[in-house]
Amino acid sequence: MPSLEVCLTHELIHLYPPTDKNVVVVDILRATSCMVTALANGVESITPVASVDECRELQQKGYLAAAERNGQHVEGFDLGNSPLSYIDNDFTGRKLAMTTTNGTLAITKSKAAKEVLIGAFLNLSALAEYLKSKTDDLLIVCSGWKGKVSFEDTLFAGALVGQLQSSYEMDCDSAVIALELFKSSKNDLLSAIQKSSHYNRLQKLNIERDFEFCVTVDKYPIVPVLMDGVLVRVPG
Amino acid sequence: MPSLEVCLTHELIHLYPPTDKNVVVVDILRATSCMVTALANGVESITPVASVDECRELQQKGYLAAAERNGQHVEGFDLGNSPLSYIDNDFTGRKLAMTTTNGTLAITKSKAAKEVLIGAFLNLSALAEYLKSKTDDLLIVCSGWKGKVSFEDTLFAGALVGQLQSSYEMDCDSAVIALELFKSSKNDLLSAIQKSSHYNRLQKLNIERDFEFCVTVDKYPIVPVLMDGVLVRVPG
Repeated sequence: MPSLEVCLTHELIHLYPPTDKNVVVVDILRATSCMVTALANGVESITPVASVDECRELQQKGYLAAAERNGQHVEGFDLGNSPLSYIDNDFTGRKLAMTTTNGTLAITKSKAAKEVLIGAFLNLSALAEYLKSKTDDLLIVCSGWKGKVSFEDTLFAGALVGQLQSSYEMDCDSAVIALELFKSSKNDLLSAIQKSSHYNRLQKLNIERDFEFCVTVDKYPIVPVLMDGVLVRVPG
Repeated sequence: MPSLEVCLTHELIHLYPPTDKNVVVVDILRATSCMVTALANGVESITPVASVDECRELQQKGYLAAAERNGQHVEGFDLGNSPLSYIDNDFTGRKLAMTTTNGTLAITKSKAAKEVLIGAFLNLSALAEYLKSKTDDLLIVCSGWKGKVSFEDTLFAGALVGQLQSSYEMDCDSAVIALELFKSSKNDLLSAIQKSSHYNRLQKLNIERDFEFCVTVDKYPIVPVLMDGVLVRVPG
């Protein structure tokens, strides 16, 4: 069986070299939840970029552009970091450029992987099914918050580990911790996530609806994958 | 109220500068369990050192010396990393030099703190009581395993957070994760700890009794503190 490890923040990724592995990048609040929602609602592709400047350059070339720093929408961009912005808007066929505080950085640091996939509660089971068919080792990279471990990303890692534990070998305490956390929280993810510092930080920004949306399980049966630096849906 | 944060591995300590805080260093399997046991069984002081060479130097000066690398006793030293070695031996009044793979490194990285304290299940409540009387911010530093997060250190961090949550303010997801982990495991710490990769790694070395000992709660009502680079018991 291939092995499964969890890296609880991209700040520790040097200890888990992604080469020769598949990597799932996780940033539940809200980058990867946005990515899944955007691709499920007509956006053709997403170019994750590290800086606000790169994002602006692509915007000038006609891309739809989303930029977030410290949990807030950056002025001058079409979109911020709310997954709800991709619903009830017609972005069919548009290319999207996106930069966020943590999630896009985690993607950048994972680029050496065989496949970089995007995980969120919104596409949990579709992603798990896809990964069950793989024979390569797997690394789940939680984005965290400015290098620190985040509750909601760890919670999701645990949910994914739970679905994969009979298909992958685990010799990783972070995976065990994440799984235990998910088990104790799975009956009420919304209450669980309200224990996170992210919730307390962002609550001021009136994003209750975003939180509720981001813990919705299996809303979109899609798997985003990075191909030539651009996120697209795995066909099928 | 002072604040409480948990750093899940010393590899992340740059994100939690220890200056002006009290720090609790945790390495349940087995460095900090050894330190507590040694000081509770007559050893006068412990000098934690980073390298095997430094440990040997102090041995040559007459110190009792304990060295562990990768979970194993280093040849040529009096003691390895089993807390049981300090029981039923008369080390009264001896000075001990100690080096371990992870725990002594975590102490070295915490030296800028106001006070560096040593935590283990063995002295959980004594340590918690001591910390309740403090007004400085607190950082719990888990040693982990070669930079990675470890199950048993996180479990202990959760136990300590549980005792301190009405005395300290928590805005730290790692603390919340640790607390949830402890809550779901507290009725059977020995079974819980058997989920750790450390258990699987060390089981081969026949140290079942060590594991059982290291999850014994409140066996020794002492608090080790670093003073001028040397661990001694807080008087009283």
